[in-house]
Amino acid sequence: MPGNKQILLVERPDEALLTSHFQTRDGQMPEVQIGEVLVRSILLSLDAANRAWMQGATYRDAVNAGEVMAGGTIAEVVESRADGFKPGDLVMAETGWQEFASVPAGKVHRLPDYRPLSNLLSVLGVAGKTAYHGLIEVGQPKAGETVVVSAAAGSVGSYVGPIAKALGCRAVGIAGGPEKCEWLVDELGFDAAVDYKSPDFFRELKAACPDGIDIYFDNTGGAILEANLFQMNMKGRIVCCGAVSQYNTSELSSPRGLPGLVVVKRLRMEGFIVSDFAAKDAEAEKQMLAWAATGKIKVIEDILDGLESAPQGLVGLLAGENRGKRMVRVAPDPA
Amino acid sequence: MPGNKQILLVERPDEALLTSHFQTRDGQMPEVQIGEVLVRSILLSLDAANRAWMQGATYRDAVNAGEVMAGGTIAEVVESRADGFKPGDLVMAETGWQEFASVPAGKVHRLPDYRPLSNLLSVLGVAGKTAYHGLIEVGQPKAGETVVVSAAAGSVGSYVGPIAKALGCRAVGIAGGPEKCEWLVDELGFDAAVDYKSPDFFRELKAACPDGIDIYFDNTGGAILEANLFQMNMKGRIVCCGAVSQYNTSELSSPRGLPGLVVVKRLRMEGFIVSDFAAKDAEAEKQMLAWAATGKIKVIEDILDGLESAPQGLVGLLAGENRGKRMVRVAPDPA
Repeated sequence: MPGNKQILLVERPDEALLTSHFQTRDGQMPEVQIGEVLVRSILLSLDAANRAWMQGATYRDAVNAGEVMAGGTIAEVVESRADGFKPGDLVMAETGWQEFASVPAGKVHRLPDYRPLSNLLSVLGVAGKTAYHGLIEVGQPKAGETVVVSAAAGSVGSYVGPIAKALGCRAVGIAGGPEKCEWLVDELGFDAAVDYKSPDFFRELKAACPDGIDIYFDNTGGAILEANLFQMNMKGRIVCCGAVSQYNTSELSSPRGLPGLVVVKRLRMEGFIVSDFAAKDAEAEKQMLAWAATGKIKVIEDILDGLESAPQGLVGLLAGENRGKRMVRVAPDPA
Repeated sequence: MPGNKQILLVERPDEALLTSHFQTRDGQMPEVQIGEVLVRSILLSLDAANRAWMQGATYRDAVNAGEVMAGGTIAEVVESRADGFKPGDLVMAETGWQEFASVPAGKVHRLPDYRPLSNLLSVLGVAGKTAYHGLIEVGQPKAGETVVVSAAAGSVGSYVGPIAKALGCRAVGIAGGPEKCEWLVDELGFDAAVDYKSPDFFRELKAACPDGIDIYFDNTGGAILEANLFQMNMKGRIVCCGAVSQYNTSELSSPRGLPGLVVVKRLRMEGFIVSDFAAKDAEAEKQMLAWAATGKIKVIEDILDGLESAPQGLVGLLAGENRGKRMVRVAPDPA
């Protein structure tokens, strides 16, 4: 009987997440109950939200110390005790950070037969759809408007800019460091990029947005949100997608100027999660593939090798070291 | 030739507004230029926003030291050098705090022949329409939802609660002091009222909203907004109408938990001003009159006598001493 490599969260971090908060162990193969499917993880998604889950209940239960770290994977059914699934089926499942998991059939989602599988986590996955639905449904962009996105080189941000461009907007990215900023403009086609680590960040953002900011797609919160708030145009929209600047800390800090600027500028700040717009997922997938085919968007993936690379992969993601969608290859594509 | 009593803002306050920031003088009658109308002020509107104008440019220019204090009045045309206006016409005009003003005809708005005139500042004025449009268009209430409003005894808040009730919602008011809270329930028909000065405010708000908060109509910002933010239901809406807790200070303080709570709870925070919904003003007026006729809303007015009562009237309003719409009678109704 094969083992089941697992990574546990052994301590909930108060401040910065460290690899020492995790521990690898050889766990037991799970027993498959009636109504469940046993799956083998193939590709594990790493997301800033993983860190937010450690802070408490969000749209899902908190992750607690001593548990297998939570996470979603593309997985293959290896044994089924549920109607409608058979070995070899490809699914998306909340397996956590482990090689094998037994999951209630009602909680797994069948995946289309699409290759490479990694695209189902990036351009056709939560990353791409979060960018698409967030910008289009929440942001409601009009051609000619200026769209700013933070964490612009990340899994979601790297699609927000190109989608904004495809819709006729000016796209401005915010990222850490001149090299990443250059990459945003040269490789992803952003009109401009601004380094939030620059001491002149506020003025550089202003220079990059000569007509002000109509939509700010916020992945960071904190000081970057504040800089945008003060530069929003009347009737601007702030798409509240994430707050990665706030995840590695126990403080609840807020940008200054709220709610005053929302009142005076008649702004709309709105949070969402991707499943709010599930009814439009098919439209999103079709449009994203069409844009990818014509080069309007680029599919950027950052694939780490082996389950044991997950802890450092998440720590690094929170420090902004990834470009595009980061994931971990736990097992080869069985196809 | 008659004089023109004026009240100047002689100093822009950094912190709390005091009556010593104002000075009364006998000014000159203005000269009427071509295209202007000379008007006599009848009823001067006092609003928390008057204080915000002293902080800098908002939806209008800032009010500067040495200028006649800005404000809107119901006024009577006494001389016209503009087509379409004649002496005796009743208008709404940005006269400022003075007995007479000469105003470009394009900037005055003709008023309907309605009595008492004071209703045109309260139930049929900006106060009533701000409550109506803000709650209905921005808040989008559904029957059965819980609506909380701060500054609930004020000009706008005193309509928000009763409108929420008329729409089948649970209405909870936040005000300062047990007496005002009692009045909200007994006189205005709120389901519950909570005293923000109570040391147990957070828990009392929770007890008043057993099903959580679906819509928070925010007139205050600050700590009251924060208490609501933490108790909002998923997909809740925060109608950002004003931030009176922030006006009498030079600090830009924000409630904690932003944008994290907006993301996690998928909230919408949206600012507006009443003129954003001018196209629906006629509908608002008709509905408000119908509700007033059947007693569903009560028209609460707080009318001070004489222009010289304006400084103390505004200082007191910012301290929350008014109930319903506060205004100053500068001259008797000419009818």
